[in-house]
Amino acid sequence: MQPALAPTYDGSTRLFFTIGHPVGQIRMPRVMPAVFQALGVNAAWLTLDIAPGELTAAMTGLRRIRNLDGLSITIPHKQGALAVADRASNRAKAAGAANLLRFEPDGSLTADMVDGIGFVEGLRVRGFEPAGKRVWLVGSGGAGSAIAAALCEAGVSALALTDLDRPRAERAAARLADLYPGVALSAVAAVPDGCELAINASPCGMYEDDPLPFDPARLAPGTMVAEAVMKPPVTALLERAAALGLPVQPGRPMLDHQLVHVLRFFGIHADTGTVLRAIPD
Amino acid sequence: MQPALAPTYDGSTRLFFTIGHPVGQIRMPRVMPAVFQALGVNAAWLTLDIAPGELTAAMTGLRRIRNLDGLSITIPHKQGALAVADRASNRAKAAGAANLLRFEPDGSLTADMVDGIGFVEGLRVRGFEPAGKRVWLVGSGGAGSAIAAALCEAGVSALALTDLDRPRAERAAARLADLYPGVALSAVAAVPDGCELAINASPCGMYEDDPLPFDPARLAPGTMVAEAVMKPPVTALLERAAALGLPVQPGRPMLDHQLVHVLRFFGIHADTGTVLRAIPD
Repeated sequence: MQPALAPTYDGSTRLFFTIGHPVGQIRMPRVMPAVFQALGVNAAWLTLDIAPGELTAAMTGLRRIRNLDGLSITIPHKQGALAVADRASNRAKAAGAANLLRFEPDGSLTADMVDGIGFVEGLRVRGFEPAGKRVWLVGSGGAGSAIAAALCEAGVSALALTDLDRPRAERAAARLADLYPGVALSAVAAVPDGCELAINASPCGMYEDDPLPFDPARLAPGTMVAEAVMKPPVTALLERAAALGLPVQPGRPMLDHQLVHVLRFFGIHADTGTVLRAIPD
Repeated sequence: MQPALAPTYDGSTRLFFTIGHPVGQIRMPRVMPAVFQALGVNAAWLTLDIAPGELTAAMTGLRRIRNLDGLSITIPHKQGALAVADRASNRAKAAGAANLLRFEPDGSLTADMVDGIGFVEGLRVRGFEPAGKRVWLVGSGGAGSAIAAALCEAGVSALALTDLDRPRAERAAARLADLYPGVALSAVAAVPDGCELAINASPCGMYEDDPLPFDPARLAPGTMVAEAVMKPPVTALLERAAALGLPVQPGRPMLDHQLVHVLRFFGIHADTGTVLRAIPD
């Protein structure tokens, strides 16, 4: 791949930031210059490292930046992002979390959650259709809840949630059960019977010393193992699952497939092919 | 000039912002990617559009950004920047304004003012030595006060200040007179006798419909006319002065020559030649 030309930032450049902590793993600043260039948009995308508990204070200042069009939100601020918004989409409400915040012309903030959509589209592009499947999801934080909501929307038959914080999994299951009465929802401590898709949506796997979020050896043959962690691209979980002969889905397609939805939320309409081709390796 | 390669921003990229209002004229986002690339520094520089009176509120949030190393400050926030700082250099105090704010490891803010230094160096590189000269300076806001302090440090013999806000010019002259007893300081309404250098440090000239900040036809032959406005690169004032046969100095060298001082303030040491060669046309 040829190196791209320098983005022509100037004083008129519109701003987008991804807010998280830590921020070293965030791909948007590498991806978005190439995407904006392909689309002819004069905008920049960088990360802001905001410590846990400081999102509300940070937003007080960020609301004053008139050339800031929007924010994407990652760990540990996705639940907080929903709280600071003036209004939210149903999928953000269902997830109990937001990964996008848009500044409206009147200065108010609208929240959305597209993490789960990208995850489900990534599975479909790989040939795995979630409709009718029995799914086990480990991690019910921001990303986990978003994936749960998108899986319910996609028509899974059963969804079992596991979290180190068991009450959190129970709250997520209750919230989803209200919104999606056709899905058998539960909070569980271990892999449920008949599981066809096992997902890690906990942050476990971002650091070298992390334990596995679950042991793929306990899964039935043929169970798809999917990952929400994006860095490293192949986690220890995926390595272990692949070594056991299980089909695996890394975290990165989740982000790639949600980019079109991210751009649309900010009023930038582009086709999936153009966006995917612009994403650097 | 070859187009530069894309800056390799990622989640570890350190951040710098220029704060101003308006921001369309600010050159730093065009200049700094090339400079950081030449120096091998993983950092980005963009502008934040903050409306008048909102700097303090904005700083509340900006102080929470852990990967934000510093800010440069332009119109209309240079006086406010000195007020929000926890400590300031003598040249910032003398100017009554700051154009740089640095986040210290303990989260506190240090202010400096290097606008005037770049201006004086730009004149010297052009062959005009300010020491011993009689100078007229129009505009005693942030940039004007900084240039005034740097001219006094450089040893001008007399400095007369003019401002539409006459008391502001009088306050600046009084402040400078205390610090630089060897300079004949005054606040005046029109060009003083014997003026050898006339400077526009007011924002007048940024917009097409602006009147001239002063009429160069009233200057003696040979008087140098210098500009602090950087966009457009040649203002109506400079055009008129050149048409009258007066020597002129545009605003841009001020910024170019101050870049080394900006970088040094943020702990990035580079030689002037490397920095000047990296600045795009």
